[in-house]
Amino acid sequence: MSHTQHAETWKQLKDHLPQWVTESKAHTSDGHVASYIPELANAPADVLGICIMDTEGNISVAGESDFRFTLQSISKVFTLILALMDNGEEIVFSKVGMEPTGDDFNSMLKLELVEPGIPFNPLINAGAIAISSLIAGSNPTEQVERILHFFRDIAHNPSLEINQSVFRSESDTAHRNRSLAYFLKDNGVLDREVDDVLHVYFSHCSVEVNCTDLARMALVLAHNGVDPIRNQRLIPRRFVQIAKTFMFTCGMYNASGEFAMNVGLPAKSGVSGSILTMVPGQYGIGLVGPALNRKGNSTAGVHLLGTLSQEFDWSLF
Amino acid sequence: MSHTQHAETWKQLKDHLPQWVTESKAHTSDGHVASYIPELANAPADVLGICIMDTEGNISVAGESDFRFTLQSISKVFTLILALMDNGEEIVFSKVGMEPTGDDFNSMLKLELVEPGIPFNPLINAGAIAISSLIAGSNPTEQVERILHFFRDIAHNPSLEINQSVFRSESDTAHRNRSLAYFLKDNGVLDREVDDVLHVYFSHCSVEVNCTDLARMALVLAHNGVDPIRNQRLIPRRFVQIAKTFMFTCGMYNASGEFAMNVGLPAKSGVSGSILTMVPGQYGIGLVGPALNRKGNSTAGVHLLGTLSQEFDWSLF
Amino acid sequence: MSHTQHAETWKQLKDHLPQWVTESKAHTSDGHVASYIPELANAPADVLGICIMDTEGNISVAGESDFRFTLQSISKVFTLILALMDNGEEIVFSKVGMEPTGDDFNSMLKLELVEPGIPFNPLINAGAIAISSLIAGSNPTEQVERILHFFRDIAHNPSLEINQSVFRSESDTAHRNRSLAYFLKDNGVLDREVDDVLHVYFSHCSVEVNCTDLARMALVLAHNGVDPIRNQRLIPRRFVQIAKTFMFTCGMYNASGEFAMNVGLPAKSGVSGSILTMVPGQYGIGLVGPALNRKGNSTAGVHLLGTLSQEFDWSLF
Amino acid sequence: MSHTQHAETWKQLKDHLPQWVTESKAHTSDGHVASYIPELANAPADVLGICIMDTEGNISVAGESDFRFTLQSISKVFTLILALMDNGEEIVFSKVGMEPTGDDFNSMLKLELVEPGIPFNPLINAGAIAISSLIAGSNPTEQVERILHFFRDIAHNPSLEINQSVFRSESDTAHRNRSLAYFLKDNGVLDREVDDVLHVYFSHCSVEVNCTDLARMALVLAHNGVDPIRNQRLIPRRFVQIAKTFMFTCGMYNASGEFAMNVGLPAKSGVSGSILTMVPGQYGIGLVGPALNRKGNSTAGVHLLGTLSQEFDWSLF
Repeated sequence: MSHTQHAETWKQLKDHLPQWVTESKAHTSDGHVASYIPELANAPADVLGICIMDTEGNISVAGESDFRFTLQSISKVFTLILALMDNGEEIVFSKVGMEPTGDDFNSMLKLELVEPGIPFNPLINAGAIAISSLIAGSNPTEQVERILHFFRDIAHNPSLEINQSVFRSESDTAHRNRSLAYFLKDNGVLDREVDDVLHVYFSHCSVEVNCTDLARMALVLAHNGVDPIRNQRLIPRRFVQIAKTFMFTCGMYNASGEFAMNVGLPAKSGVSGSILTMVPGQYGIGLVGPALNRKGNSTAGVHLLGTLSQEFDWSLF
Repeated sequence: MSHTQHAETWKQLKDHLPQWVTESKAHTSDGHVASYIPELANAPADVLGICIMDTEGNISVAGESDFRFTLQSISKVFTLILALMDNGEEIVFSKVGMEPTGDDFNSMLKLELVEPGIPFNPLINAGAIAISSLIAGSNPTEQVERILHFFRDIAHNPSLEINQSVFRSESDTAHRNRSLAYFLKDNGVLDREVDDVLHVYFSHCSVEVNCTDLARMALVLAHNGVDPIRNQRLIPRRFVQIAKTFMFTCGMYNASGEFAMNVGLPAKSGVSGSILTMVPGQYGIGLVGPALNRKGNSTAGVHLLGTLSQEFDWSLF
Repeated sequence: MSHTQHAETWKQLKDHLPQWVTESKAHTSDGHVASYIPELANAPADVLGICIMDTEGNISVAGESDFRFTLQSISKVFTLILALMDNGEEIVFSKVGMEPTGDDFNSMLKLELVEPGIPFNPLINAGAIAISSLIAGSNPTEQVERILHFFRDIAHNPSLEINQSVFRSESDTAHRNRSLAYFLKDNGVLDREVDDVLHVYFSHCSVEVNCTDLARMALVLAHNGVDPIRNQRLIPRRFVQIAKTFMFTCGMYNASGEFAMNVGLPAKSGVSGSILTMVPGQYGIGLVGPALNRKGNSTAGVHLLGTLSQEFDWSLF
Repeated sequence: MSHTQHAETWKQLKDHLPQWVTESKAHTSDGHVASYIPELANAPADVLGICIMDTEGNISVAGESDFRFTLQSISKVFTLILALMDNGEEIVFSKVGMEPTGDDFNSMLKLELVEPGIPFNPLINAGAIAISSLIAGSNPTEQVERILHFFRDIAHNPSLEINQSVFRSESDTAHRNRSLAYFLKDNGVLDREVDDVLHVYFSHCSVEVNCTDLARMALVLAHNGVDPIRNQRLIPRRFVQIAKTFMFTCGMYNASGEFAMNVGLPAKSGVSGSILTMVPGQYGIGLVGPALNRKGNSTAGVHLLGTLSQEFDWSLF
C-alpha cells in the first residue's frame, strides 16, 4: 500500500470509527458478561471500546477505550511466545500439539481419548496451563516476574500489573482448571507442581490492560516481532508466525472457523470480552466489550471487527 | 439347603480348597502387580490366599491366607453403605447415579458429556470420592474415625488400622484422583473441600486387612446386614441390597459383566489384588492375589472363584 | 417355597393384581409413546396389561392383557440364545462383548472409541444387529423362519407372526440402525450383507405377541430353559444363564441399574412398552404399557413391577 | 512483487525444482499407500510429481508430473464452492458448520455428541457427503453432470472423466461412508436418498486428473475465482474466500495446524496422495505422492511444500 493510500485509509478509519462503534454497541445486549469468575461478573455489559494503532504509533480510538480489563486468554498468546523463546520449538511441541480441537476450551475429552494425552494446542486451557509450566524461572514468583517483564516490554508500558482481586477470584473458583492441571500432571505433561503452575497461569490471566496496551502488543505481532515505533525486534519472527497461525486456527474458541471466514484476521479473545487482532504489516488492534456470545467471544466486538474487515477488505483470503 | 447338605459341601470345600488354590496360582503369572501406587508395586506377584467363612464362623483357608493388604476399592462398598446410613437414599442418589458406565474406573468422559455431570455409580473412582464427602463428621479426622469404627464393626476386628505408608503413597501420587475431585467440585457434587475429601478417600482405601477380615465383612452382606455369628444386625437390609446390586453390575470394573456370567456372585475387587464376594445366605469370601489382569482384577483370584462357582453351582442365575 | 406357601402367594397375587394395575395405570400419563417408528406411534398411551404364569400354566391377568404388540428389543434376548445355540459361546463373544455400556441403546461412541470396535453387549442395538447376522440359515428368509420357529416353540404358540406393517415401518425409517450396521460391517463384525442382516433384525423385532405369550417365554427362562408345563428342555441351561445375566445388567437400557435396585429381577424391555421378566424358579411375567419414560421403559410397567417386587420380596438381593 | 522479481523467482523455481523433488522423494519411503480402497492400493509408493503454474499459464514441472490420479478429498473444495453457488451461504451453513473438529476425517463422535448433530465442516467426510446432497440437479446423474462440467471448467480441461474402476472400488467398500450418510439422514441433514447422495459423493471423489489439472484449478483459487489465463471470473470471490479459509483451517485432515505452521498456505490433500495448494495472487500448485503419513497426507508432498515455502517465504504469516 502506498503512503497516500495509507493516509486515506487512516482518515476514513478515524472518521467512521465512532459511528461503527455505536452501531456495534447495539449488539452488547445479545450477550452476557462471564459469570464463572465472580470478579469478572461485575463488568458493565454495555461497554464497547477500541483502539487501532498504526506503524508510527498514531491511534484511532472510539467508545470506552479507557476501560480497564484483564488479559485472560489473550495472555496465552504471549506466554506461548515466551515459552518458545525460553525452550525452543522442540520442547514446547513435546508438551502441546498444533491442532484445533473442536471441543470446549476447558474440555478434558481429548486428554483422555487421544494418545499421548497432551493438549491439542496451546490456546485451550489445558495447553495454556502446560505452557505456564515451561516459562523459565526457578520458582513461580520468578516466572511471573519474567512474564510481567515480557508483557510490559511488548506493550511498551512498564506500569502493567496483576489485578490482585481478579487473581484471587480466579484462584479461588477455578476448580475446573485445577482438574485440568492434575490431569496433565498425571499424564506427565507438567514437570512443576500443580499449585505453582496454576499460580503462574492465574497471574498472567490477571494482568490488567486497556485497549491501547492491547493495540501496541498486537502491533508487534502485525510486524512479525518488531516494534515498528521503536524499530526494535522483540520476538524472533518464527515464533510470531507460530503465534499468528494458532490465533487464526484456534484464537476465538470454538468460533475460530466462523471468525476466520467473516473477519479473516489472526485474533485472540479473552473471557473479559477483550479481543486482540491485527492487520498484518499495518495495524495493531485492541478492543473490549464484556458481553459475550454463546461461544465466549465479545458479541459487539466480533460485530465491529466484521464491519471493519468488510469496509477495508482486511480478510487474509 | 439342609444341615447335612451344608456339612457335606463344607467338607468338600475344605478338602479341595488347597488343590484349587494351587491350580489357580499358576495364573498369577498371567498378570501384573499394580504399579501406579509405588507402595502397591512392592507386593509379591505370586501370592494367592483365600478365606471362606460360614454362618457359624468356621473358616476354610488356603494359600497365603495371612497375607496382609489394603482394601483399596473394596472399601467403596462399605463407605457407600455408611453414606446411606448417614444420609438416606435420596441424598446419596442426588450425588451419584445407579448405572454401570462401560468406561474405565478413573474415566472423566461421562462427567463432561452426560448431564447433570454426576458420577454414574458409587463404585467408580469419581463416585467413591463423592461418597467420601457424604460420610458424617465435622472434619476429615472425624469422618475417618467413623469409617474405621464402622469397618472394624463389620469385620469384628477392633485392630483394623490405616496403613500409613500406603496412605502417603496414594496421597502423593494420585494426580488423577485429584483431577476427578476438582471436576466434581466444579460440577457442584462435593460440598466439602477437595483436600479434605481426598484425605478421607485415601484413608479408607488404605485400611489394612487380611483374607479373614474380608470374609467376615462379606458374611455380613451375605446375610443381608446381620452378622450371623453374633446374630446382630449391623446394616439395614435395604442398604445391603443396594450394595450387592452395585457389586453385581459394577463391582469388577469393566469386567463386571464377564464376572457375572462366569462366576455369578456379587463381588468387589481392589487394586491390591483383593476380592470380596459371598454366597448369599451362606458364606463370606475374601481372597487376595496381587497380580492383576488387564481389567484390574486378580488373575488367579478370578480363576479360583470361577472354579468354586462351577463346582458348587453358586451362580445366581 | 412350600406348596401351601405358593398357593397363598398365588391367591394374593390374583386378588390384588387388578388393583395394583389400576394404581400403576395412573403412571401412564408420565410417559410418552415411542414416536420414532410411525407404526408404534399409534399405540394408545393409557394401556397397561399384565400376565403372570406359574409352573403349571395357571395365569393371573389384569388390565388390557389381550392388547397385542411387537416384541421389539425383547426379541434380542431370544435371538441371543438362538445364536448361542447355533454358534457356541466362543464365536458369539468374538462378535459382541459382555459389558454394560452406560451409553444410549443406539450409541456409536464405543464402536469408534474402544478397541476392537465390537458392540459392548448383545442387548444394545449394535450388539443385537451383530447377533442377527449369526443366526444360522443360508439366506435371510431361512434365518427369519428359524427365528420364528424358535420363538413359537418358546412361547408354545404356533401362530406367532411378523406384523408386516410394523416391519415395513421400521425398515423404512431406521436410518440410525442402518448407520450402526454399516459401521459394524466396516469394523468386520458382520459377515453377511447389511441389508440382509437388517431384514432379519427388523423381522424379529416385529414379531407380534400378547402378554400371555411373553409370560410363557419368560417362564422358560425362569426354569433355566425347561418349559415346566410341558416338562421339556428347550434351551441349554448355560445359555439361559448368560441371557439372564445380560437381562439383569443391561436389560432395561440405561436404567438397568436402577431397575436392578428397585425391582431386582432379570428383565428386558422393548420400545413397544413391553417388559418380559420372571421370578426365577417360579413365574413368567409379561406386561405392556406403551407410554415410555425418558430412559425408554414403560412408566406404568416399571411402577407395577416395583409394587409386585416389594409386596412379594422378589428382589434377588 | 515487481515483474522483474517475479521473473527471477520463476527462474529460480524452474532451476531448482527437480533437485528439491529428488530430495523430497526420499521421504516417500516414510509413508504407505492408502489401502482401504483396493483400487488406490495399487498406486506406486515411490512416485512424486508436481506442477506449478503462473498467472500466464507457464508451468514448472518436476518428477512424475504426468502421473494420473483421482481427486478424492480435493474434490470437496470444489463441490463446496458449487453448493455455495447453487444454494447460497445460509442454506449451506444450515447443513454443515464452520469449525475444525480435531477428530479423524471419518469420525462420527461429534455427530452424536454435539447438538444439532450436523457435520462440523464441509471438508470432513460427513460434511462433504452433506454437501453432495446440496448440488443442484433433479437426480444423481444430473448432479454428477453438473459437477463434472464445473470441474472441467475450473481445470479448463473438457476431457476430465470419472475413473470408473475407482468409483466402483469406493462404492463397494465404503461401509464407513454409508454409516456416516445414514447417520446424517437420521439427523435430518440429507434431503435426498442415501444411495443417491453417495453416488454423487463417490463420483466426484473419482474424477481423474494430473498435476497440471490441479495446478490450474488451484490457480483459479489463487486469483479469488478468476482464471487469470482466460481472464474470466468462474467463482464469486466470497465463495473462494470461504473455501480457502476452510483449506487453511481443516484442509490437511488432523495435521492442518501443523501444515499451517510449517507451510502456511491454504491447501487440500486427498487420500490418493495428491495436494492442491496455491500462493495467493500468484501460483497454482498441484502435486501427487501416493505414500501417506499417519495423518493421511503425502509424506514427500508435505516435505516438498515445506521446502518451497521456506525457500520463497510463502507462508501467509
